[in-house]
Amino acid sequence: MATTTVNYPEEFKGFAISDPSEWSNPKLTSYQPKNFGPRDVDIEIECCGVCASELFTLKNEWSHGELACLSSTYGPKTQCVGHEVVGKVVKLGSEVESGLKLGQRVGLGAQASSCADCSRCKSGNEQYCPKIVTTYASRYEDGYISQGGYASHVRAHENLVFPIPDGIESHLVAPLQCGGLTVYSPIKRGIEDVLAKGEKPTVGVIGIGGLGHMAIMIAKALGAKVVAFSRSNAKKEDAIKMGADEFVATGSDEGWEKKLFDQFDLMLNCASSTTSLPLDGLLSTLKVNRQFVSVGLPHIDEKFDVNPFTFFSNGSTIGSSCLGSKQEAIELFDLAVKHNFSPWVETIKVGEEGVSEALTRLDKGDVRYRFTLVGFNEFFGTGKQ
Amino acid sequence: MATTTVNYPEEFKGFAISDPSEWSNPKLTSYQPKNFGPRDVDIEIECCGVCASELFTLKNEWSHGELACLSSTYGPKTQCVGHEVVGKVVKLGSEVESGLKLGQRVGLGAQASSCADCSRCKSGNEQYCPKIVTTYASRYEDGYISQGGYASHVRAHENLVFPIPDGIESHLVAPLQCGGLTVYSPIKRGIEDVLAKGEKPTVGVIGIGGLGHMAIMIAKALGAKVVAFSRSNAKKEDAIKMGADEFVATGSDEGWEKKLFDQFDLMLNCASSTTSLPLDGLLSTLKVNRQFVSVGLPHIDEKFDVNPFTFFSNGSTIGSSCLGSKQEAIELFDLAVKHNFSPWVETIKVGEEGVSEALTRLDKGDVRYRFTLVGFNEFFGTGKQ
Repeated sequence: MATTTVNYPEEFKGFAISDPSEWSNPKLTSYQPKNFGPRDVDIEIECCGVCASELFTLKNEWSHGELACLSSTYGPKTQCVGHEVVGKVVKLGSEVESGLKLGQRVGLGAQASSCADCSRCKSGNEQYCPKIVTTYASRYEDGYISQGGYASHVRAHENLVFPIPDGIESHLVAPLQCGGLTVYSPIKRGIEDVLAKGEKPTVGVIGIGGLGHMAIMIAKALGAKVVAFSRSNAKKEDAIKMGADEFVATGSDEGWEKKLFDQFDLMLNCASSTTSLPLDGLLSTLKVNRQFVSVGLPHIDEKFDVNPFTFFSNGSTIGSSCLGSKQEAIELFDLAVKHNFSPWVETIKVGEEGVSEALTRLDKGDVRYRFTLVGFNEFFGTGKQ
Repeated sequence: MATTTVNYPEEFKGFAISDPSEWSNPKLTSYQPKNFGPRDVDIEIECCGVCASELFTLKNEWSHGELACLSSTYGPKTQCVGHEVVGKVVKLGSEVESGLKLGQRVGLGAQASSCADCSRCKSGNEQYCPKIVTTYASRYEDGYISQGGYASHVRAHENLVFPIPDGIESHLVAPLQCGGLTVYSPIKRGIEDVLAKGEKPTVGVIGIGGLGHMAIMIAKALGAKVVAFSRSNAKKEDAIKMGADEFVATGSDEGWEKKLFDQFDLMLNCASSTTSLPLDGLLSTLKVNRQFVSVGLPHIDEKFDVNPFTFFSNGSTIGSSCLGSKQEAIELFDLAVKHNFSPWVETIKVGEEGVSEALTRLDKGDVRYRFTLVGFNEFFGTGKQ
């Protein structure tokens, strides 16, 4: 076990690459953590979800430059990803004020730090802080490039560390922290005005994959009628099991646009591209002045391929939503416990082989509907405190 | 006067073209009106505003086909435009129920009919009725192609005929009915949540032309702080006179995006294109989850040239808004009377020469900021009842 055990706190170990060509084969790597700040928290990792955005970062498809880690001022020149972390608190900065305790089960999503001081941080919108540091491949002010959760430990600002309630298993709560939160925030914000009027909103979920399958459950739990949209009928049975009230196969159902005209309070696009969608038809099913929100993450050069005239028929708008706030994460966990739903997760044992399997299968779309890497304590010789 | 006087009600007369090449020289034409329906109203026209959308229709730039009038089932094969009509009621259908009176001063905007029966018509959103008939170049169910207000008379459904209050002159209220209403509706809808919280919203108005100059006055009257955006400083003095609190010349002011970061509750694009705008910078000035609404009308093939990632920084959305409702028109007229604002209007005497001058100068941008064609009663020998 000499090669896998970790000399914490001087060292973290994780699965990392140094070149995008290695995206499917991260190697076990030792690295220096970021300098520990007074409001930082160290999490000893128990398990970590696998998110499609990892593929974009590892393949470097969200950048026109080189891997961010190569420009770090200190710390590793390799990149470890992973941002659906569950573990326990093993170290607290001297100025931590949010009540986190050593040994507490906590989570970390896609964001590791924000300024904690701007109007956005102070209004429950820290995911839109202009000084956001994402959990991996993102630059801290001191020049360290953040390292993710396919690792023994992760370090983050307390304001982004989520307390996890009892009543939901770690490998199931993991995917809620990025994928789940990313759909929870726009669904909640997109229908709360309808719920406030005592009406039942109707939500369309487009793309039944990692994000979409959680969106169905979440919209349902929030009280919406849910219509799932997919290209074919292949996922129809699954979508109904997840809680969808109706299912539309846009590639084969005739006349769905007309049948669903003026039905939706919110359309949530969970597919990773908008250019392959029947956007005009989807937008036409919105009620007046409602939103089409895209959370599926496209290639960096993709554009919204839509004509301004399309929106004249109902005064709708199109845009994107980024992650969610810590407060929303806490709400989401409570919602999952209360409504007894959880993502459909296949667990894979962590290790070079397991990480490679997860990334390779995710890249092929061979996942129904989410992977969580597990067994971190056994692998890294942690979990003994 | 034999050629200009009108044999109403069998005949309307107006300035019309039969080919897009004639766009700047509509000729005085006699035509059959649409068959009179039980809820129709005839307006004897006193004056009519000139709107940039007229150019798109006359040049046929919103269509990939031929002029709509060429496919009419009955009525003229020529097209008369104009949809900022002020006049008086001279005929009421037998089932008119909205309290309009013969001789009453009324107006008509860009919409002449809706089904009056769908959920949108019944919820103050008749401008989004799927059976909308616009005031010109639009097909009625009976096959007539609608004819506009550069004419002696116009016929429309009572639900789209606006009563006009005292306290504002006809040539000044005319442009409020299309241009004014088109900006009033998205401004009101886009900031009413902020106003409801007792806060002062900040509205950006992009493009200080026919639409933008009214948007400044309207946003100001509704209680917003208004920032006007233009390419150069050429219209700065005017914008401040209209009521803008600040002015930004995007082409020459350095660093405006950073200075205005996180300032806007609403961005209203009144320019006729989005492709020539610094869209990324403009979107970055929105607060979290706010809207960029485009009301300037582009060429039919133009797209929103914007990357989904642009929206991740603040969860904003982009879209368009179409006209406004009759209720909103009534609110707008009252607002204008109460706050004593009106569009900046240059009047031009109606006639072939005047119509040609208005269209030609509008096409060149030689207008500060709106034309109203006047003198209809004298020209057509009407106004004698």
